[in-house]
Amino acid sequence: MAREDDLDVADQDLEDIALGEDYALNPEFVPMVADALERGDAERLRELLGALHPADIADLMGFLSPDDREELLPHLDQEVLAEVLSELDTEIREDILEHVPSAMLAKALGEMDSDDAADVVDDLEEDKKAQVLAAMPEMERAAIETSLAYEDETAGRLMQREVVAAPQFWTVGQAIDHFRKEADELPELFFDVYIVDPSYKPVGAAPVSLLLRSSRNTPLAQIMEPVTEIPVDMDQEEVAYIFDKYHLISAPVVEPGGRLVGQITVDDIVGVIQEEGEEDILALAGVSDAGRDASVLEIVRSRIPWLLINTVTAAVAANVIGFFQGEIEKLVILAVLFPIVASLGGNAGTQTLAVAVRALASRELSAVNAMRTVTREMTVGLVNGALLALVTGLLLYALGQGLGLALVFGAAMIINVCVASLAGALIPILLERMGRDPAVSSSIFVTFVTDFTGFFAFLGLSALILL
Amino acid sequence: MAREDDLDVADQDLEDIALGEDYALNPEFVPMVADALERGDAERLRELLGALHPADIADLMGFLSPDDREELLPHLDQEVLAEVLSELDTEIREDILEHVPSAMLAKALGEMDSDDAADVVDDLEEDKKAQVLAAMPEMERAAIETSLAYEDETAGRLMQREVVAAPQFWTVGQAIDHFRKEADELPELFFDVYIVDPSYKPVGAAPVSLLLRSSRNTPLAQIMEPVTEIPVDMDQEEVAYIFDKYHLISAPVVEPGGRLVGQITVDDIVGVIQEEGEEDILALAGVSDAGRDASVLEIVRSRIPWLLINTVTAAVAANVIGFFQGEIEKLVILAVLFPIVASLGGNAGTQTLAVAVRALASRELSAVNAMRTVTREMTVGLVNGALLALVTGLLLYALGQGLGLALVFGAAMIINVCVASLAGALIPILLERMGRDPAVSSSIFVTFVTDFTGFFAFLGLSALILL
Repeated sequence: MAREDDLDVADQDLEDIALGEDYALNPEFVPMVADALERGDAERLRELLGALHPADIADLMGFLSPDDREELLPHLDQEVLAEVLSELDTEIREDILEHVPSAMLAKALGEMDSDDAADVVDDLEEDKKAQVLAAMPEMERAAIETSLAYEDETAGRLMQREVVAAPQFWTVGQAIDHFRKEADELPELFFDVYIVDPSYKPVGAAPVSLLLRSSRNTPLAQIMEPVTEIPVDMDQEEVAYIFDKYHLISAPVVEPGGRLVGQITVDDIVGVIQEEGEEDILALAGVSDAGRDASVLEIVRSRIPWLLINTVTAAVAANVIGFFQGEIEKLVILAVLFPIVASLGGNAGTQTLAVAVRALASRELSAVNAMRTVTREMTVGLVNGALLALVTGLLLYALGQGLGLALVFGAAMIINVCVASLAGALIPILLERMGRDPAVSSSIFVTFVTDFTGFFAFLGLSALILL
Repeated sequence: MAREDDLDVADQDLEDIALGEDYALNPEFVPMVADALERGDAERLRELLGALHPADIADLMGFLSPDDREELLPHLDQEVLAEVLSELDTEIREDILEHVPSAMLAKALGEMDSDDAADVVDDLEEDKKAQVLAAMPEMERAAIETSLAYEDETAGRLMQREVVAAPQFWTVGQAIDHFRKEADELPELFFDVYIVDPSYKPVGAAPVSLLLRSSRNTPLAQIMEPVTEIPVDMDQEEVAYIFDKYHLISAPVVEPGGRLVGQITVDDIVGVIQEEGEEDILALAGVSDAGRDASVLEIVRSRIPWLLINTVTAAVAANVIGFFQGEIEKLVILAVLFPIVASLGGNAGTQTLAVAVRALASRELSAVNAMRTVTREMTVGLVNGALLALVTGLLLYALGQGLGLALVFGAAMIINVCVASLAGALIPILLERMGRDPAVSSSIFVTFVTDFTGFFAFLGLSALILL
């Protein structure tokens, strides 16, 4: 376990209770904290919280009731509070921020990197925001205000303004001497020293490990490596793509003129990648994340729009069934079978859709191979449809249904699975080309297409051939 | 754009053509390469490939036909080949590796970090693997064989054996002098120096940036920070969780006895997080990724099992309809309406399921709040069901259907959406508790439950009340 050396035995035991072997918070630990809060046992709380990393305290907050959270706040000292605040989920943070006095908050913000501080300030209500900013030193306030001026989910919001830069003509020795002298002014952690020209444009980067192993008289210009510059207005999803593709640890962020204004580090990107993946999963299911602590009303609000849209599409598709009421009256087994055709089409469409959305997100699917992908999906749909038609058709026949019905069912299955595969591939590609997020509304269209086609193909063929 | 300084104007132009503003490969660039390959124009190829980062060459390979890929290989020099190989998707790499001579491959592997080299060797066919390993120097071979001895998707496979360690009693100055002297033996990039005790157990870590700004006579023991040790057999998903939670850049990997055997760096974790997110999206849709280059047969094989399972569940659910054939014959409008009840239940279930799977993956949902989550989802289901019942019931009534039918439809809607929400929350929680991946088979169960309940509630209530 971590931090073994600087904890005594009792603390070590507590840490073992707090975290499971997988470093997730133990279920038993939460009531221990809640209990100490109830008894108002400050010393016990100090012990319990002392065993936790700020990220784990943030985690703990997520499992506590809003009242318990509020009571916990005074037991955190300022530095820990700063770290906990930057770790918390937005909705819990918003709730907590109301209960932190402005002066204390201003000080805690001063301890954070500018990107984290800006995130916190952004969650404040307007009048509190003004109070907190007014209580901060001029420099820090300006940094946060600049950061907030960039749009949400862009490189500008993601970056920290704290960077380490050096002119091209310096040597390794000069740089190290400078860092030692200015140690207090430097960010706590940094991975690259950006080499800048006189107009402060980055011309290269020297990884710190390279500085460390080069001799003192090596010119920085000699060991620097090319940099991948991130424009300040780039979308965070693109930034994540670049970090992943080129295995970057940090990258300089530049203004439109090319001037260095900040840096993005990979630990921020890890969060972005998690977020974007989660957004895609939820979007495909037609739901937005209301947050772990959301009220029933908030959850209802995040889900009902999609359900209402689906009511409309389901009603339109069901209308197709309405046209064939006469046929169903005559041959009621049709009512048993058409849901199966629609259901399997829906599943085939969902499969293709998930693969296409994933491939678009990772840019494995682009204009280069869009046609090839759609054609291949159609072929797969044909094969899968034929296999399912065979299995289900034979089964129907074996169960004593007529050959005609089995054939019609099989034919409808082939048609629907084919159409489903086509729709599942084509719809997200088209949405992407229209500049829309392909994860967001594709499944409404795909489900509608497979319901409609399933009902129409099976009932239509039945009407034509069987009746 | 990157690398502006060391490219002349023509090369810069080519790079602008090769990559879009978002650093993704331009669709126009692929046929340019294919064309040069066809003409056998080696000089043009050198120019075109020279404009690309190895990660972009790997990307390009993904868009080329298998024949073109094979032809491209001789145009890559050994170092670039090494980097391209470690960037490639598994299935394309397997295909390419067959065409690289064993001796050349052995040399390319020598250029890679041990984790990347092991991944490549793992993709080789048995006899080629033996040949390639035999052609490698003893040390490198041993490193790869040790790495391959760890199970796939564990910390042992993810880690690189190359680490930088220093004894506790050294000073910053001693460490830097040592690194300068042994520069050739060190990994190209490193972010932390692990401080080890005499039995080579890590007792702390000094970030390189901290070394760089501390004075030469500072003892390492004084500036070192606590480390989070990763057991060599930990699952990569847990490793990713720890990196994300504690914002780690690198972490030491230890054997069961606690001895330092390697390190994992965050750039490997970025790949893991991407992978795990993609796996969840695909698993929820009931499909495994056959790879961007998969044949129709491979894709069919990755999708048909789920479709066959769904055929069975859909048939069982449709059986419920079969029980009510008499009722449907008497009141054929029932056949138009039951798909709507089932469809909306299915959507509500999918929404809850996606939220629950995501919350389980990010450990926001655990034993601590499982009961609360399930109860809340039930309540949401009740509210959403009631809202949908109201809208659809009123609509039916307005369209001239009887009040009885509207009431039965609404009641069935409430029941099904409630059951759907319960199933969507409970099923993934139970699967997780049984040690299964909740993303993998939850949606089969949820869909079955919502189909079954939708048909049964609506048709059953109709039979009881209307007929």
